Amino acid sequence: MPSNSTELNAEKFFENSRGFKPETLPTDAREFLTEMARQARGSILKMTTLAASGHPGGSMSSLEFYLLVYNFANLRPSDPRWADRDRVIISHGHTSPGVYTALGHSGFLDVEQAIVGFRLAGSPFEGHVERSAPGVEWDTGNLGQGLSAACGKAVAGRALGKDFHVYALMGDGEQQKGQISEARRFAIKYGFTNITGVIDLNRLQISGATKKIMPQRIADNWRSDGWNVVEGDGHDLDEMYSLLRTARNDTVKPTVILAHTIMGKGYPPIENDHNYHGAALSEERCIDALATLGFDDGAEELENLKAKRAQGVKSNLSHPPRLYPTVATGSPRTYEVDKKIDNRSAWGNALVDLAEENSPGKSNSAPVVVFDCDLAVSVKTTGFADKRPDMFFQSGISEHSTAATAGACSAEGALTFWADFGVFGIAETYNQNRLNDINEANLKVVCTHCGLDVGEDGKTHQSIDYFALSHSVFGWKLFTPADPNQTDRITRYIASQPGNFLMVMGRSKMNPVSNSQGDPFFGADYQFRPDRTDKIRDGEGATIVCAGAVLGMGLDAWEKLSESGKSVRLISAAHWADFHADDLREICEFGKIVTVEDHNVNTGLGMSLSSELFSAGLAAQIVKLGVTRYGSSGKSADLYKLMGIDGESIASQTLALLDKTTSVEKKINSSVIA
Amino acid sequence: MPSNSTELNAEKFFENSRGFKPETLPTDAREFLTEMARQARGSILKMTTLAASGHPGGSMSSLEFYLLVYNFANLRPSDPRWADRDRVIISHGHTSPGVYTALGHSGFLDVEQAIVGFRLAGSPFEGHVERSAPGVEWDTGNLGQGLSAACGKAVAGRALGKDFHVYALMGDGEQQKGQISEARRFAIKYGFTNITGVIDLNRLQISGATKKIMPQRIADNWRSDGWNVVEGDGHDLDEMYSLLRTARNDTVKPTVILAHTIMGKGYPPIENDHNYHGAALSEERCIDALATLGFDDGAEELENLKAKRAQGVKSNLSHPPRLYPTVATGSPRTYEVDKKIDNRSAWGNALVDLAEENSPGKSNSAPVVVFDCDLAVSVKTTGFADKRPDMFFQSGISEHSTAATAGACSAEGALTFWADFGVFGIAETYNQNRLNDINEANLKVVCTHCGLDVGEDGKTHQSIDYFALSHSVFGWKLFTPADPNQTDRITRYIASQPGNFLMVMGRSKMNPVSNSQGDPFFGADYQFRPDRTDKIRDGEGATIVCAGAVLGMGLDAWEKLSESGKSVRLISAAHWADFHADDLREICEFGKIVTVEDHNVNTGLGMSLSSELFSAGLAAQIVKLGVTRYGSSGKSADLYKLMGIDGESIASQTLALLDKTTSVEKKINSSVIA
Repeated sequence: MPSNSTELNAEKFFENSRGFKPETLPTDAREFLTEMARQARGSILKMTTLAASGHPGGSMSSLEFYLLVYNFANLRPSDPRWADRDRVIISHGHTSPGVYTALGHSGFLDVEQAIVGFRLAGSPFEGHVERSAPGVEWDTGNLGQGLSAACGKAVAGRALGKDFHVYALMGDGEQQKGQISEARRFAIKYGFTNITGVIDLNRLQISGATKKIMPQRIADNWRSDGWNVVEGDGHDLDEMYSLLRTARNDTVKPTVILAHTIMGKGYPPIENDHNYHGAALSEERCIDALATLGFDDGAEELENLKAKRAQGVKSNLSHPPRLYPTVATGSPRTYEVDKKIDNRSAWGNALVDLAEENSPGKSNSAPVVVFDCDLAVSVKTTGFADKRPDMFFQSGISEHSTAATAGACSAEGALTFWADFGVFGIAETYNQNRLNDINEANLKVVCTHCGLDVGEDGKTHQSIDYFALSHSVFGWKLFTPADPNQTDRITRYIASQPGNFLMVMGRSKMNPVSNSQGDPFFGADYQFRPDRTDKIRDGEGATIVCAGAVLGMGLDAWEKLSESGKSVRLISAAHWADFHADDLREICEFGKIVTVEDHNVNTGLGMSLSSELFSAGLAAQIVKLGVTRYGSSGKSADLYKLMGIDGESIASQTLALLDKTTSVEKKINSSVIA
Repeated sequence: MPSNSTELNAEKFFENSRGFKPETLPTDAREFLTEMARQARGSILKMTTLAASGHPGGSMSSLEFYLLVYNFANLRPSDPRWADRDRVIISHGHTSPGVYTALGHSGFLDVEQAIVGFRLAGSPFEGHVERSAPGVEWDTGNLGQGLSAACGKAVAGRALGKDFHVYALMGDGEQQKGQISEARRFAIKYGFTNITGVIDLNRLQISGATKKIMPQRIADNWRSDGWNVVEGDGHDLDEMYSLLRTARNDTVKPTVILAHTIMGKGYPPIENDHNYHGAALSEERCIDALATLGFDDGAEELENLKAKRAQGVKSNLSHPPRLYPTVATGSPRTYEVDKKIDNRSAWGNALVDLAEENSPGKSNSAPVVVFDCDLAVSVKTTGFADKRPDMFFQSGISEHSTAATAGACSAEGALTFWADFGVFGIAETYNQNRLNDINEANLKVVCTHCGLDVGEDGKTHQSIDYFALSHSVFGWKLFTPADPNQTDRITRYIASQPGNFLMVMGRSKMNPVSNSQGDPFFGADYQFRPDRTDKIRDGEGATIVCAGAVLGMGLDAWEKLSESGKSVRLISAAHWADFHADDLREICEFGKIVTVEDHNVNTGLGMSLSSELFSAGLAAQIVKLGVTRYGSSGKSADLYKLMGIDGESIASQTLALLDKTTSVEKKINSSVIA
């Protein structure tokens, strides 16, 4: 029996028991884990006291099942990103001290590094669990999302043909989040019996007793959604082992284990005290606690560790790189200009092509997975669903969970799309997509019915914030295709590029945009350049910049202006920020700019472009046309007219701008500052 | 028995039966409602066919309980905003044809106006129910939020001492939204037996059978949260009446009624066909359907109505004005500059003052209601909770529902605050707050722990998008107080002003900002001006603009610069958009600007200010300091340093800008274009 666990010890010790092989917990394993738990509790207390911050309470209550899962699940401590590993999601991410120490004492990482670096600026050992710590699968912290992420891992396992188990380890307070119920039903619908949930039932949350904060019948909730619910003493290693083993082997239903635990377990003065949910012990109490746990050198040890912490971050652990799939994008389709079609259909067709190009038989191709929230017909994913029903995941009206599930799936090597209306795929799930971004997922969100072009569904369904929201998250990239041909190209582009992308379109049919010869502008020879705008028509005196499919109205305005002898420049922008310097100059050349967007005009293209022009030292008169108030319910063309962004309004606003004279001494040169 | 219901008929007929007085449904009422239902079905079909859009299926399945509730609940058709009315929330807002016709035939509005104007741009009869239609209480359309809104009405009723009943009428598809489970538990916790839920169990949603899209045991879900669940035939007026009456009189538990119905009920060819969930009948089929319902003049009637529709919107109904409470704001508190205190405490203290000033005994004062999601200690609402436990609503970790509940409560005349961390009160609930805004609510959201100043909780908890998100919604106004004194003033200001406000602050303690005499800058004589910036220090050569509490670091930088003989101008901005022209000129005077914000630098103050300066024809060199990537977990001061927005970094960036020479021919004058 080792008295001090080291990396080698644990990994070797449990090597042949992985996958919960033994029928019951072997005696020597129990003894080893008991000692590990004692040491881990010491580490938790040192870590939080040293940082004077963090969550010791739940870390100490979840500890036994953390140790059991990390040591008996199919994991390789020295190869924590092994492709066939079980996936362990920590949903209550604030129990990071418990997770880091359990991982550390189980051989995944250097415990002392975690103790010294915990919550220290620049350290990989963050306040809420992050993938920079080896063994952590998914960054969490905002509660109630872990089971959804676990579902995403299960979907990926199925898509990739991998036979791993998925653990969703949760707190009891977070059961109050409705998103968990969405994930429960999804798991049942798709028969993910390879998910095991564990809930740390310590009956306390940050403000006090859960039964006081929000009374809840957790077991009944889970049973009502069809889960197998079992209960046991969360600190009894034998009982928890048996429950975990049985749950793992259940092929009828997924199981959730209610682990009855004690917050702060191991140091009686703080046991069952909610004040230690989120507060560290003082040094003095920590030393007493360490002594209670059998560590008599607490004072000395703390001084030692403090000195090391004072030297700053030593670790160079960082987020492991994501495995981005290789995607075959097939041949672009070109839609002729004389036939009306909607961007939605062009996306749906391109998706079918991608499914074809990346079908199982083909070499080097990624499986394509598509998520839908009860809108497949509208968002044009039925073609895909018919072709690959096994890879089409219909999660009903449950966008929060779906966003997290799709994100977690996308990070595993399947090419993952989620299509929805803009208000659901962007506004309703902004935070879930923010978390996907923090997790460096590889999700392709395609939103239709955006802008006033949602039409008769009216203001509650008008997605007019897609740029502002997607741009608020560092990793997401937004593209707004101007027509079906550009939609086709952008679909193939985002499929092949790593990272999170958002493609936004409206609902209406249109004629594909033509060049001045009458051929498709975004035709066979067109190459999508993600950082460049497209000059649709040239002219002078002013530049009209259209964002996305409002280009149709811009062209209408351009023609009206041309007829009256005023040929201006017409630019199409599929991206709304980080403009190329040459494009900025081209837009600004005449010192008069009209921007047109089907988006809140305060936060969209006009604002972004103005800001970039200003920073570049360029100056111009600008008229920003866009959505200036909540629109009403009606045909898109009528709504555009009411909002003043139809062809006629654009033309008349451009004319007014052209006619506007500026006194010479006040005119700002369109030149670049140093 | 009237063969044709008119406004007067229905109102008078049910006048003495309101509040579900009769023990059973009287025979003449049954006959009246049966005829009303027949006519309403005709109206639903005409309305949707005329608009060639809309949702007839669910409208026809929910119809009987709509008619029962609108005619037996305590409502006054000719005075639909009567203060003591029951509140009827339609959660599945797409059944607007059913709602408008039920209201019309019950005397609340002119049915023909609704038929003619349905989904016509500019008409009050929108695609999803809106308050512009008399009798509609709350704008909905995004599913799963109705029960939360109903809870908000129940809270308001309790706060205002009103004894009304609240109806939450829902669809079955939307039961898949987890938010509903959060609202269920809230209603049980607070004993809101005056809420009755009805679910239209037509077993279909837009993509097909609910059991196929997302299998769910709806009754078990509701029972698991402690609700009384009863079931009946949703088209049997007698049975539904009895269930509604019993539910209304139950004082032990709130009841939900599962109304078994038939989608498209009344026209057999579309009954139980999910394709008519969201699609209108062709004119030909509509005429056939009308004949089936006993209206033989369908063809002629449709032509008639089409002609009227072609004439455009005739109605001038609009959203009824909100009842904003009169609020006594008390005397401001001034915090001295030599004592560190956090903005959070200043807000918490001001809240206690507001509770005191507006306590029940005082005349003309509004009740103050505060919502919390398990963070009271951190967000400093415990002072209020201790003082007014009856007005403090602890909803646990259930932000989605809480946002909708708080919004619906705020629209009823109670002064309503919701305090939370930024990532929960802004990011997680963006869409719920968007819906609150569409509903012209009067909610005051106070978010603490924003920016990098969330400290050790790390990136999942960094709220660095509060401006971009709040500015994406037309009605929300954001303020970021610079220090505890300004926090005090802004708290009192937003309490007294109508509309939705967001006040954002960090976590750290600070010394209140002083003026150059060493007295509090935002002291006794300071008057908060929501549209103006504050000049903290004057100087020349460059202007540093600080947004919110980063002013502390700006002052630090200013002092460092002063010591080296470079006194620049230092401006504090509590609002981030719609700058006053004089302020823009003052900021731009020297042609060199440094902005500092604890926010995503791509979407915050720097961007907004640049855009406004550009539009104003002003030019300058600008350096934008802010959050450029997800931050890490550590002490706020360390994080600021790592991100380059600490005093030293600001000073050195300003120095570099001051030293930057621009060639004369390229320098842009800081002058205004025409």
